[in-house]
Amino acid sequence: MPVGTGPDDPGGAAVASSAPRRVVRLRTGAPRVERADSVAVEEPLEIRVNDKPFTVTMRTPGHDLELALGFLVAEGVIASPDHVRTAMACPDADQGNVVEVHLAHGVAPPDPSRHRQVSSACGLCGTTSIGDVRAKGGRNVEDDPLQLDERILFALPELLRAQQRGFDRTGGLHAAGLFDAEGTLLCLREDVGRHNAVDKVVGWAFQLGLLPLSQRILQVSGRASFELVQKAWLAGAPLLSAVSAPSSLAAELAEDAGMTLVGFNRNDSAVVYTGAHRIVSPG
Amino acid sequence: MPVGTGPDDPGGAAVASSAPRRVVRLRTGAPRVERADSVAVEEPLEIRVNDKPFTVTMRTPGHDLELALGFLVAEGVIASPDHVRTAMACPDADQGNVVEVHLAHGVAPPDPSRHRQVSSACGLCGTTSIGDVRAKGGRNVEDDPLQLDERILFALPELLRAQQRGFDRTGGLHAAGLFDAEGTLLCLREDVGRHNAVDKVVGWAFQLGLLPLSQRILQVSGRASFELVQKAWLAGAPLLSAVSAPSSLAAELAEDAGMTLVGFNRNDSAVVYTGAHRIVSPG
Repeated sequence: MPVGTGPDDPGGAAVASSAPRRVVRLRTGAPRVERADSVAVEEPLEIRVNDKPFTVTMRTPGHDLELALGFLVAEGVIASPDHVRTAMACPDADQGNVVEVHLAHGVAPPDPSRHRQVSSACGLCGTTSIGDVRAKGGRNVEDDPLQLDERILFALPELLRAQQRGFDRTGGLHAAGLFDAEGTLLCLREDVGRHNAVDKVVGWAFQLGLLPLSQRILQVSGRASFELVQKAWLAGAPLLSAVSAPSSLAAELAEDAGMTLVGFNRNDSAVVYTGAHRIVSPG
Repeated sequence: MPVGTGPDDPGGAAVASSAPRRVVRLRTGAPRVERADSVAVEEPLEIRVNDKPFTVTMRTPGHDLELALGFLVAEGVIASPDHVRTAMACPDADQGNVVEVHLAHGVAPPDPSRHRQVSSACGLCGTTSIGDVRAKGGRNVEDDPLQLDERILFALPELLRAQQRGFDRTGGLHAAGLFDAEGTLLCLREDVGRHNAVDKVVGWAFQLGLLPLSQRILQVSGRASFELVQKAWLAGAPLLSAVSAPSSLAAELAEDAGMTLVGFNRNDSAVVYTGAHRIVSPG
């Protein structure tokens, strides 16, 4: 099985998994500080099998051939190296975000009909580029007049956590909460999937005719991926706050959308990646 | 928009988000204790739009209509209640794990061709039932003779963490590590997606002809979802250990596969959900 230029991916480990980004650091009782930071890189990878598009996944670049092959193992398509004729990155296509796998003669390719009816619930269905995703047409929230007191921002994770009944029992459920600028919890949903918890909150608002979510805040219990920013954006929320880290693409999309993106909101401090003007420090 | 029987999902919040499970608790210096525990429920939900299958997502049951509607908002398909004619759970179909949405006249349904070429990288592509997933034919690892010293098991998360260079910089990368029974780290991969990190490790082993992963241990930095157990199983690994919680379906699949599933592996203690016989306590 010739795999790229050898057993390692071309540039496998050499690709940067983090990217620099200017952020604003907030902390109770301290002045806000702008400084350099690093975020985890997130980019779409298209996997092609026998010259046909097979899947698109959001991933951190590096070891892309391993990712494609491991994915095909998990799909039950391949099990040993002689099942693969070639596997290689396409350096020219879409900035290297395409991997091409050719299966050995006699190895059945994945059934395209199996892939027809499903998607990832990740907002990437059928999209092969960031441009496609952006073209979905989320409302630009740049003009949203939300102003949020820093103390209320810092309180959101604990307000969310206090209502997470499922997490108390299992330690295994993500949560998403919708708040107003006074810190009132309007809706909380829990799910094993972060994106599902956000979908449920947005669906709740949709049913009640509350979209777009002007001047509302989405607080999530985990990390802020591209998909979560996208979902917040499509729902029209001007501020997404996460207890943990955002990805590079999450920050880029938030910036394009005119959203405020907050990460590491914990212990009376937070990091603001975009739109810090919406957060008002006391005193 | 008639939504089920009213603005709330039928049984929305009444559906249990956790399920009881017998587990074995391990702790340094203490005898192993079998006790009752709770795990987060994870089940597949099929979303149909205008009588056509649209997507399958793994979710925690409850508020399924919200989930379906919120997902369609994030897909750019709907934006206000008058875009939806009806949305209802199908109580008879697949134990209620199906939601049917009918769009209002004039609202364009999602383009099926957009969904044809993509999947979730979650191992569920095209499957509409657990039976389908199990039918993928992972090798039963019940007879795998792995015996793992409890002290080595407890050391794995820190061994993984010590090598996570990307996490050090960003705080935003998941990790998966492949270990042998002596606790030697064979391969570590980081990614914004947990499933990608595991795919990369499996792809690494695939390239080197090391599948199936007999007597090997997969340690992951986050939670153990159904998809991660499935990926470990398809790769033939007899033991999956997670720093955080597993889901109900993760434990059920691990049990069926004859795998050992460990969760909450942290601070010199762990919870064993299936296959505790592979872990050897000292003394």
